Amino acid sequence: MTEIGIIAVGGYNEMGKNMTAIRIDNDIIVMDMGLQLDRVQIHEDVEIDKMHSMDLIRMGAIPDDMVMKDVGGTVKAIVCTHGHLDHIGAIPKLAHRYKAPIIATPYTAELVKHEISDERRFDVTNEVIPLKLGGRYNVTPDIQIEFIRTQHSIPDSAFAAIHTPQGIVLYASDFKLDRMPTLGQPPDFHRLRALGKEDIKVMITESTNSGHLGKTPSEQIAKDLVRDVLLGTEETESGVVVTTFSSHVARINAIIQAAQEMDRIPVLLGRSMDRYLSTAKNMGYIKFPQNLEIYGNRNGIDKALKRISQEGKKKYLPIVTGHQGEPDAILTRIANGDTPFKIESGDKVVFSANTIPNPMTMANRYALETKLKIQGARIYDNVHVSGHASREDHWELLRMIKPDQVIPSHGNMMMHADYVELAEDAGYVFGDTVHIMRNGEEMIV
Amino acid sequence: MTEIGIIAVGGYNEMGKNMTAIRIDNDIIVMDMGLQLDRVQIHEDVEIDKMHSMDLIRMGAIPDDMVMKDVGGTVKAIVCTHGHLDHIGAIPKLAHRYKAPIIATPYTAELVKHEISDERRFDVTNEVIPLKLGGRYNVTPDIQIEFIRTQHSIPDSAFAAIHTPQGIVLYASDFKLDRMPTLGQPPDFHRLRALGKEDIKVMITESTNSGHLGKTPSEQIAKDLVRDVLLGTEETESGVVVTTFSSHVARINAIIQAAQEMDRIPVLLGRSMDRYLSTAKNMGYIKFPQNLEIYGNRNGIDKALKRISQEGKKKYLPIVTGHQGEPDAILTRIANGDTPFKIESGDKVVFSANTIPNPMTMANRYALETKLKIQGARIYDNVHVSGHASREDHWELLRMIKPDQVIPSHGNMMMHADYVELAEDAGYVFGDTVHIMRNGEEMIV
Amino acid sequence: MTEIGIIAVGGYNEMGKNMTAIRIDNDIIVMDMGLQLDRVQIHEDVEIDKMHSMDLIRMGAIPDDMVMKDVGGTVKAIVCTHGHLDHIGAIPKLAHRYKAPIIATPYTAELVKHEISDERRFDVTNEVIPLKLGGRYNVTPDIQIEFIRTQHSIPDSAFAAIHTPQGIVLYASDFKLDRMPTLGQPPDFHRLRALGKEDIKVMITESTNSGHLGKTPSEQIAKDLVRDVLLGTEETESGVVVTTFSSHVARINAIIQAAQEMDRIPVLLGRSMDRYLSTAKNMGYIKFPQNLEIYGNRNGIDKALKRISQEGKKKYLPIVTGHQGEPDAILTRIANGDTPFKIESGDKVVFSANTIPNPMTMANRYALETKLKIQGARIYDNVHVSGHASREDHWELLRMIKPDQVIPSHGNMMMHADYVELAEDAGYVFGDTVHIMRNGEEMIV
Amino acid sequence: MTEIGIIAVGGYNEMGKNMTAIRIDNDIIVMDMGLQLDRVQIHEDVEIDKMHSMDLIRMGAIPDDMVMKDVGGTVKAIVCTHGHLDHIGAIPKLAHRYKAPIIATPYTAELVKHEISDERRFDVTNEVIPLKLGGRYNVTPDIQIEFIRTQHSIPDSAFAAIHTPQGIVLYASDFKLDRMPTLGQPPDFHRLRALGKEDIKVMITESTNSGHLGKTPSEQIAKDLVRDVLLGTEETESGVVVTTFSSHVARINAIIQAAQEMDRIPVLLGRSMDRYLSTAKNMGYIKFPQNLEIYGNRNGIDKALKRISQEGKKKYLPIVTGHQGEPDAILTRIANGDTPFKIESGDKVVFSANTIPNPMTMANRYALETKLKIQGARIYDNVHVSGHASREDHWELLRMIKPDQVIPSHGNMMMHADYVELAEDAGYVFGDTVHIMRNGEEMIV
Repeated sequence: MTEIGIIAVGGYNEMGKNMTAIRIDNDIIVMDMGLQLDRVQIHEDVEIDKMHSMDLIRMGAIPDDMVMKDVGGTVKAIVCTHGHLDHIGAIPKLAHRYKAPIIATPYTAELVKHEISDERRFDVTNEVIPLKLGGRYNVTPDIQIEFIRTQHSIPDSAFAAIHTPQGIVLYASDFKLDRMPTLGQPPDFHRLRALGKEDIKVMITESTNSGHLGKTPSEQIAKDLVRDVLLGTEETESGVVVTTFSSHVARINAIIQAAQEMDRIPVLLGRSMDRYLSTAKNMGYIKFPQNLEIYGNRNGIDKALKRISQEGKKKYLPIVTGHQGEPDAILTRIANGDTPFKIESGDKVVFSANTIPNPMTMANRYALETKLKIQGARIYDNVHVSGHASREDHWELLRMIKPDQVIPSHGNMMMHADYVELAEDAGYVFGDTVHIMRNGEEMIV
Repeated sequence: MTEIGIIAVGGYNEMGKNMTAIRIDNDIIVMDMGLQLDRVQIHEDVEIDKMHSMDLIRMGAIPDDMVMKDVGGTVKAIVCTHGHLDHIGAIPKLAHRYKAPIIATPYTAELVKHEISDERRFDVTNEVIPLKLGGRYNVTPDIQIEFIRTQHSIPDSAFAAIHTPQGIVLYASDFKLDRMPTLGQPPDFHRLRALGKEDIKVMITESTNSGHLGKTPSEQIAKDLVRDVLLGTEETESGVVVTTFSSHVARINAIIQAAQEMDRIPVLLGRSMDRYLSTAKNMGYIKFPQNLEIYGNRNGIDKALKRISQEGKKKYLPIVTGHQGEPDAILTRIANGDTPFKIESGDKVVFSANTIPNPMTMANRYALETKLKIQGARIYDNVHVSGHASREDHWELLRMIKPDQVIPSHGNMMMHADYVELAEDAGYVFGDTVHIMRNGEEMIV
Repeated sequence: MTEIGIIAVGGYNEMGKNMTAIRIDNDIIVMDMGLQLDRVQIHEDVEIDKMHSMDLIRMGAIPDDMVMKDVGGTVKAIVCTHGHLDHIGAIPKLAHRYKAPIIATPYTAELVKHEISDERRFDVTNEVIPLKLGGRYNVTPDIQIEFIRTQHSIPDSAFAAIHTPQGIVLYASDFKLDRMPTLGQPPDFHRLRALGKEDIKVMITESTNSGHLGKTPSEQIAKDLVRDVLLGTEETESGVVVTTFSSHVARINAIIQAAQEMDRIPVLLGRSMDRYLSTAKNMGYIKFPQNLEIYGNRNGIDKALKRISQEGKKKYLPIVTGHQGEPDAILTRIANGDTPFKIESGDKVVFSANTIPNPMTMANRYALETKLKIQGARIYDNVHVSGHASREDHWELLRMIKPDQVIPSHGNMMMHADYVELAEDAGYVFGDTVHIMRNGEEMIV
Repeated sequence: MTEIGIIAVGGYNEMGKNMTAIRIDNDIIVMDMGLQLDRVQIHEDVEIDKMHSMDLIRMGAIPDDMVMKDVGGTVKAIVCTHGHLDHIGAIPKLAHRYKAPIIATPYTAELVKHEISDERRFDVTNEVIPLKLGGRYNVTPDIQIEFIRTQHSIPDSAFAAIHTPQGIVLYASDFKLDRMPTLGQPPDFHRLRALGKEDIKVMITESTNSGHLGKTPSEQIAKDLVRDVLLGTEETESGVVVTTFSSHVARINAIIQAAQEMDRIPVLLGRSMDRYLSTAKNMGYIKFPQNLEIYGNRNGIDKALKRISQEGKKKYLPIVTGHQGEPDAILTRIANGDTPFKIESGDKVVFSANTIPNPMTMANRYALETKLKIQGARIYDNVHVSGHASREDHWELLRMIKPDQVIPSHGNMMMHADYVELAEDAGYVFGDTVHIMRNGEEMIV
């Protein structure tokens, strides 16, 4: 009989460097190869693109895939279900060790290619194969990967169902059950309900926000919050700068639409802003209004900021990088006074993002906000809703899918403990049908 | 020359027992007479309706209006700008000491009458005069009260402008600058802007949430959150119970509308639910759908709950009291198993309310939620947005009104400190044009 | 070959109702039968002493020992290693179901007898056998219990080593590694080191504070803090009231000694104060100074408080119950004005205790402190050090004992997760040599 | 009649850049000129020693003494009551603007001289006059400064009483009421009580920890905690590194004494460690044991660390800089692997310090601890007690001194609000006898 093993490579002891391997007898599918940013941030002057895998593994910045040596089998595919760096950021460092194609949703595939082309140390030649939402791909005659549409804070996010002779392994991370998405379609509940009637051997799913009460609000709420902040003001002439996740195309789209309503020209500024949005536009995920401007290199950015300052801030809505206070991002440069755009008393700075709760990021945000406030900026923080499922979303997914076994991933043991309690509410038994795994461990399902 | 004095009677050292007196030479206008609930909660078996004012003052539960003896002048009017208990709850205990009418917006006036009729100790005979939003009332030939429409978490909330020979005193508490209200109209920005061009001597305004970054989201957001929670589920047959503030008519209206979309019969349960909603309906603030049911007494409530249990929970949406875990509220009785309605695994309990952050309430909520969870309830908490202005709302109001002086009220000194920092950002000077007052103090403007 | 099974009955999903069963083939040793107080507190008017076990199990207040039915074997002994209620409080409700003696250290044995004699519902006739620190007791010819001296916040605390043909099971809960205890001797490091060289199959140990960095300070520090607060003042004439855990004989001894230095008469007040201290004195754990007074019943207490008021507060140091704001405790009665002892401005109230972090207790403490402050009391909080080992204490114990397997108990999964990370630091492997168990589960070692 | 004005220059809106001016008619005494470190930390690559005052003022890093221009009078003396940088750190940037001597306790005077000699931008030639605890100095024929012994976390801390024809101004910051100091004598309670009987016009005192319940424990407690951690272990052969405040001579003395008991050689490492301790030793505040080693420059430090590694960690106790994770400190260099001393599994790192609660420092500490833990270090955090008075210490001082007026300093408005509530408890009236001041404001007493 076919044996299925789940190998927790990374992202089981922490939230960050995600990597899971699924072994079906001797065939292995790798899910994600991610980067843990805060393990890079604690060091000064680190240039990741030039670093060796082993050093990054030692720093705890990428998954320690040395455990793969002890796993009997051959990697047949590397699968990426969405394009965030904690899922694809280690591909340039690890993928070349495996003779296997990278299978990803189309937008994810483009981002993977960008990551690979930025790499300066390793030569990554794995084929990158785009697979559409709803599509299927035969890894071996016996093993098929199916992408099922979900929603998350980046376009083209999928669940992956691995169909094996022994039943299905469902990899459900990252996601939210958004029934009113502002970009793309809602999760494919029809297919999920159908899956729930099939033989789901095991579901691997994010525990990240499983301790958050209730359900995660729809992205529609975030869109409305953005509109409420940008349009709901008596001070309509003020300078306004918005910052958000560059990869959150739906959010940026909402900001662009608000700019139209405000009768301001949206100007996207920043290298990653350019990369994520231009890619999204070229692939048809988003349409730009005619007057939108976008600049990715420093020269273009500073010219644009100069023009905005000269022509009047009230005509423009700059949408910039820097929501986490990243040292080289545009908003940080503005706050440092290093651009022609000067913050004046009453100017608004809107963070359409949460602050990632790690001390390095909190310090960056503090430094950024302090500088902005000294210059007179008015701060609007957390005009945002999360992209991760909350406790009741998990409850509904688990009851819909009804897997034989469930394994929380994408979190530390505290987060997994929350998930376990939830699964116990739904009748699962710890150590029997719901499990906590640690990095480096294989579990036979 | 006319002298204006502001007397901080209550609500300046704490958030709760609001009462401010405005003295124009020898004529005094009292704004609000409120109750501080947590000073009642710390005692067991207190029956407020039978208690004497002096005992309640000693407990710190109502404003200590003994300071009024030292103020030279006569109270000519008691003004209530909205109907929450922290603004009108002490009227039955204090109003009879003053020979003055109570002037309030129409909905507030009705609630004041209810409070008075519930009183068992004192005989309160002050005339209650309804004054519409936008209306004016001459207290003396020289002094006129004007009600300006605002928004808050109860219908018919107003700012009060006291027109005096010496200029205007603006009492701006409680409020939010909601441009998309779901009940009533947005604040009267036209009039507020006009006031900003007049001679505003002093503005008294709530400091409550002035430390909260950004702006308070519109009630429209809360409505969407309610809809998202109630309709956005794959488990549409479950029992669902919603609880919220009985006085929050807009919110309850949103819940009723969601019930219609869910094809469930909305059933309002609880004494205060009956009082606030029936009053609102009779006065035309809200229309009930034909199938709505409402029960205020225990007998009716238990019969309704029995019928719901028998006919099937999926046909009904009970909207009940108990959002703060109040010991005698309907949700608490359900959790205690004291009603025919039994919580079953998977039933949803939706709190469309925050938890008031005082330890007594937090304990009540903890006890309530623990009991509900033991029975299998799924908890949705904080499906809510605040009714109080945040930092940037205050920033905008202050810059719109441009008062000579501003005094934060409705909070403790920490909250006032937040407001002072905000006012300093706007150019006000502490101790000169922005002030912190303490209960019992008079300031000559 | 002998099989050893560990059955997690209670205290593995929560901190409170501890009960663990150790099965050696068909012989079972039960460790502890505890009460979870907050599951009682959430209900009004509960009289535990009259309640049935099944109702208390349903409330989650005592361990659900129904799982014992599925365990093959006979209970041969019930072992209690110290006398706190979360370890012995369920004995009156559960012990009579097992035909087995209760084996406990001498002080613990006395407290167990008190618990049994207070019970009004069940007739508990199990023999209570005192076993001294360092003593051994043969449960069966093959199984021997050894008590090893440790330190905790109650006298006569022990680790229990269960010697079996298959090796040793060490039950190490609750404890601190106090090298400067103020009552009794330090833990028996000599014996513990010797055990570390024997064949320890499994150690079951508290995870409670394993997430607290560093080591728990010695009780000597608490004694010094108490002295510093009571003697280090310029206001030596003020009334002073101290409250602490009645079972914390070492702490009370320190307070009594400080009273001598202050030249005040120590007066112990409260039913449990009387019980724990009189027992300790009668058994020789503590010596009372000649002038010490102690009153356990209401009449005696109120008379003493009257006398103190009349003769002058500065002559006495009342040491009272009520550190958690318990509704009927002496300090609460004082705060309510229900005793002849009136708090005056400047009187000091010293809490030589932490506030137990559950919402019910926090509300009680808030109510208590608010009332005390209104009357002018000066509050000294948390003049205390914990009785539970911290992270580095656990690190040292684990490296000293070197068990084959280790199982954290006495906590929720979050606390266990902390312990697991610690054990991993020491080379243990999750799921292999360090385990998380859930109530109701048996693990074969 | 003589007029006394208090000018809040810095440290009234924030905790950090302390500077207060006391004007007696036209004669001005400046108290402290301090630096706010976190306003430097938010910028990269700032070299303070080369910067201009105006830039530092603009950054908010030093007091904005431009307000002194508007104050009528001449500065006659600059007084420093202890040597922490938030009190003396701005002297190199501001003192040269005033033709006035700097008067300081002897240890403070030495530190001031060091600060001045490190300055690279300004030429500071003010005379530095040491004045002993208990000493007096005539600033003018009418104005006398008296230093009264207090206790704080640095040697030679004083209160300053400014004797004027109009009464006394008492400057009481920073301090703790330590009755069991481990270095120096307790505060001069005799003199303080005597002062309480004189005519104290106004007391200016730190509000910093006035919100902390109870009293601050004696430094004796910290000494005992240090001993308990260093000696109370079963793993006596491990490498141990201790870090604490370089200026906290009493604490370092306690660590040195513990090293003797451990039979280890104490080795002080780091530039500031060398400066503060060598100064203290040369001035006779501390005696070094014969085997103590001390190294201040990188070369000496690295040599010492190499020797320690070679000869065996168990022979030495390195006492190093870096308790706040400062980027260039010794502990940070060790954690980065930049020294010959390598952390091994089980080595102990003891932080005899709190983490200063600002996000920049918290990030530094997080980075430091993460690196240490990856290498296997065991962390002991917060083996420390504060050097600042708590609520009840303030209560006692205020009642002892009985000033006509009291002004909290050394904190933000939240901290001042805590102090005001305390003063109100003691009968002071806000706005009348207890005041909140803002930077830049003068108050006539």
